[in-house]
Amino acid sequence: MRYFVITGHRAATTGDFKLDDITGGAGRLDILCRCVNSSFFLSHNLRRNVDVYLVLQGGDAAPKTVRFCGGEMRYLNPDERSTSSLIRNALLKKLPEHGEVRASPGVYISRMSFDEVLAHLSDKGTFVHLMEDGTDCREYVFPEDPIFVLGDDRDLTSEEEASLLAYGPDRIRLGPLSLHADHCIIVAHNEMDRRQAADQSF
Amino acid sequence: MRYFVITGHRAATTGDFKLDDITGGAGRLDILCRCVNSSFFLSHNLRRNVDVYLVLQGGDAAPKTVRFCGGEMRYLNPDERSTSSLIRNALLKKLPEHGEVRASPGVYISRMSFDEVLAHLSDKGTFVHLMEDGTDCREYVFPEDPIFVLGDDRDLTSEEEASLLAYGPDRIRLGPLSLHADHCIIVAHNEMDRRQAADQSF
Repeated sequence: MRYFVITGHRAATTGDFKLDDITGGAGRLDILCRCVNSSFFLSHNLRRNVDVYLVLQGGDAAPKTVRFCGGEMRYLNPDERSTSSLIRNALLKKLPEHGEVRASPGVYISRMSFDEVLAHLSDKGTFVHLMEDGTDCREYVFPEDPIFVLGDDRDLTSEEEASLLAYGPDRIRLGPLSLHADHCIIVAHNEMDRRQAADQSF
Repeated sequence: MRYFVITGHRAATTGDFKLDDITGGAGRLDILCRCVNSSFFLSHNLRRNVDVYLVLQGGDAAPKTVRFCGGEMRYLNPDERSTSSLIRNALLKKLPEHGEVRASPGVYISRMSFDEVLAHLSDKGTFVHLMEDGTDCREYVFPEDPIFVLGDDRDLTSEEEASLLAYGPDRIRLGPLSLHADHCIIVAHNEMDRRQAADQSF
């Protein structure tokens, strides 16, 4: 499995935003939608071996986490508007104190915080932190189940970074220039795809 | 310079579509918007050495081409809605028979067809065709001014491909899996960024 955790520092935690205004009105939810696109889409196919955790932390309310599960996904389209509609639909669900609620096929929502998402994932794979001074991804031995943790348009906060560092993540860099989160996901996928195909004819 | 030509086979050639419906109503203009995003955006920066040509060919009317010029660009935001608004604004301009009209800073529109765009670019660089049986991009010697030609969610038509092949394009592949056009642009940029940085500390 390939896991991606993206923190939406200002992202809406309630579903009362307009789909016409997902940048400002929903706290840069557009960035998270593009990360979902990058995580899952292949040409005429979806990556089934991917789970994405969007940690929505905007406003004063407690955070919520929307999980996209590649193995169960249906109705996912590549455009930002339809993905933000899936997220809004999830945010409109009544939530228990603990546990996930299924909002639509492959889309789940919970009250998990960033720290709780990391704790939840910590026994599922190896954390990978994208850092400009990390190992070049082309020289990196990828774990079988990498868990990439990314900020939206802002880096992880110092508290988030401390939480991640407590798990001793691997540190890699993807190239010489600093990229948007959704673009980082594409480059990471390409490198992993090449490794997996290395024994084949490619 | 890095040039990207993307053909929008069904993309609107008039500005009478709604920004709420750029997927169906504007002929998958969302795909072209994501290609613009991938072509230009770096983290907190724009790639100034990029020109993008969107060839809009939907409907029965003659095609139009919207050109995004990185060197002159302002007001470009990464979300699909705002980019489609720039395109719609360009489509609402009154156009002469020949030549480009400036619609907003760095955004131009003309009546150029796919063939005319290729002819216009043919003395500016070397055409690059993304093909699954091409040379692996990691083993490819990139020209100084590559001109990538991509389809939207559909491959080039046989007529478009014949036009491109007449220029004897280089043929490269980006990885073992077939990707969306906007994702291809990210992988190509990453490879070229690495080449350009190879003499530096990276």
